[in-house]
Amino acid sequence: MTKVADINTPSEQAFIPPADSRTRISQFMKQIQDEICTGLEELDGVSKFQEDNWQREEGGGGRTRVIRDGGYFEQGGVNFSEVWGKQLPPTILKQRPEAEGHEFYATGTSMVLHPRNPYAPTIHLNYRYFEAGPVWWFGGGIDLTPYYPFAEDAAYFHRTLKETCDKHHAEYYPAFKLWCDEYFYLKHRQETRGVGGIFFDYQDGQGQLYRGPDLNSIAAEYSQKVGDLPRRTWEELFSFIGDCARSFLPAYVPIAQKRQNTEYGDRERNFQLYRRGRYVEFNLVYDRGTIFGLQTNGRTESILMSLPPLVRWEYCYQPEPNSPEAQLYNTFLKPQDWVNWQENN
Amino acid sequence: MTKVADINTPSEQAFIPPADSRTRISQFMKQIQDEICTGLEELDGVSKFQEDNWQREEGGGGRTRVIRDGGYFEQGGVNFSEVWGKQLPPTILKQRPEAEGHEFYATGTSMVLHPRNPYAPTIHLNYRYFEAGPVWWFGGGIDLTPYYPFAEDAAYFHRTLKETCDKHHAEYYPAFKLWCDEYFYLKHRQETRGVGGIFFDYQDGQGQLYRGPDLNSIAAEYSQKVGDLPRRTWEELFSFIGDCARSFLPAYVPIAQKRQNTEYGDRERNFQLYRRGRYVEFNLVYDRGTIFGLQTNGRTESILMSLPPLVRWEYCYQPEPNSPEAQLYNTFLKPQDWVNWQENN
Repeated sequence: MTKVADINTPSEQAFIPPADSRTRISQFMKQIQDEICTGLEELDGVSKFQEDNWQREEGGGGRTRVIRDGGYFEQGGVNFSEVWGKQLPPTILKQRPEAEGHEFYATGTSMVLHPRNPYAPTIHLNYRYFEAGPVWWFGGGIDLTPYYPFAEDAAYFHRTLKETCDKHHAEYYPAFKLWCDEYFYLKHRQETRGVGGIFFDYQDGQGQLYRGPDLNSIAAEYSQKVGDLPRRTWEELFSFIGDCARSFLPAYVPIAQKRQNTEYGDRERNFQLYRRGRYVEFNLVYDRGTIFGLQTNGRTESILMSLPPLVRWEYCYQPEPNSPEAQLYNTFLKPQDWVNWQENN
Repeated sequence: MTKVADINTPSEQAFIPPADSRTRISQFMKQIQDEICTGLEELDGVSKFQEDNWQREEGGGGRTRVIRDGGYFEQGGVNFSEVWGKQLPPTILKQRPEAEGHEFYATGTSMVLHPRNPYAPTIHLNYRYFEAGPVWWFGGGIDLTPYYPFAEDAAYFHRTLKETCDKHHAEYYPAFKLWCDEYFYLKHRQETRGVGGIFFDYQDGQGQLYRGPDLNSIAAEYSQKVGDLPRRTWEELFSFIGDCARSFLPAYVPIAQKRQNTEYGDRERNFQLYRRGRYVEFNLVYDRGTIFGLQTNGRTESILMSLPPLVRWEYCYQPEPNSPEAQLYNTFLKPQDWVNWQENN
């Protein structure tokens, strides 16, 4: 006899991956790669993505697509990968000790795109899915890195992400926005990478929002204050990731179109190349995806395709006070409540 | 009554730092910085080093000197620092667990210099000294990174280093040359950073040559085969470090002078900028000095002054077969016995 309370309660089965989980997610990741590449080629108008298929010795492989010397993009890559192996690397096992001693499976899509025009922002997206013995989880995010920034673009970007998150849970956007500010932070520069976006990791069948390493962070405190959500089923989380990935084009392309024809000169170009140095510093010193790739003998060229085509370092550069460059530092490289930004601020 | 055997045996006192160790070594490190800067300004002929003095909140400080837009140097820095604090960072404590719970003192000089001409090699030097409770040690090294390489330069560089090492112990050069090949290695590229030089760490009053993390490495095997040297006194090791640092100008300047006026075009410049990307990858992903600096809240601008002024990344770049660029990969980015290189090879 079924108890009344069970009618709307998912069975335990709903909190573990279905038998065809790997096929479904890897197919989805490939489809997302296709859709996004098509959309970005339309935006670019000149160049097409070149594809490389590759195999990984220990198991799995991927397809890397790179666009270069375009009308809009100076260089960018959109990667799909699906890898498996005997054991997750230590950095991940530290966060998910239950995975120790188990084989792992991981699939995902990740992209970084560097426009040529310094008024257009660099964009990054990565969504991924893991299974390892008794555990499985989704992770990823999207964040925007402007050089000559516009508050209205940051607000538009965040509002689009919030709308997507709100369809799934009202606490997703606020929690994952804080997590993003915390994750894409260059400690040695005391700067955020850009205007942020959303980021999350280790989202599984449990109710906890924040699962990051720093339990004293603002994101962790926020998650504690909210408390545990009702447990999320595998299908719910897959559907959430799907909506996130599909919001990439609507969140980015309108900003790109608005800024792509802005005139610029050597000053703006030099500052863009200098700021791209921060992207390199973040990806090589902090980024978990890069470190995971290098630690698991990933394909180096696919991992490091996130690095910009041309970069400058300058000892002790300081923006001139009250310049547009100073505005980037003073307002845009600090966590801000972009969703509630008002035009007349 | 003194036993006969004791006459030539240093007392235990000789294996611990003298009372004025910190003053003597930091003064020496500053003097080396002065001598090297003077020599490099002469080589450059156009630009002078600009000095910044800085203080570290937790204790200590340094003086950073940067040269830019010179006749020979595109950008380079020569740094002196002297820092102290409550506890060494975890990465060092793992190697020297005896230092756990003790205050530390560290002083050193480090430099990276990037010439403009692609036929002239980048040079790096770093010598350092640590005290932490019951332990003290010297470490450091020097290595050469050519873009368009010359075997005779690599041989000259290594022979100069060997001569310096041989004055102190016949096993220093062979052991520390292997350690250098091992340390300045980019695993994700399967390349050495350049043609190497010498590198060592944790040289203290004991007789062991190799004290690195990888006990299965070639350097570790070589050191085991040699066995323990007679214990080195503090004065002996200080004198060794001193000779190493003073051999910087004679090891590098003649190579620089020979190559500085070689004509080059866009092809060579583009390849130089591309190869500089490897320098960035090494320093941000692997370099112990960089990681130590960032972990101990060092001065970011002084730590990252090692990064080149302009850098290029290119997805899946491959040198053309039989080109000078291919020669770099095929011969110079692999460990070689440069000391015994023969011109008619």
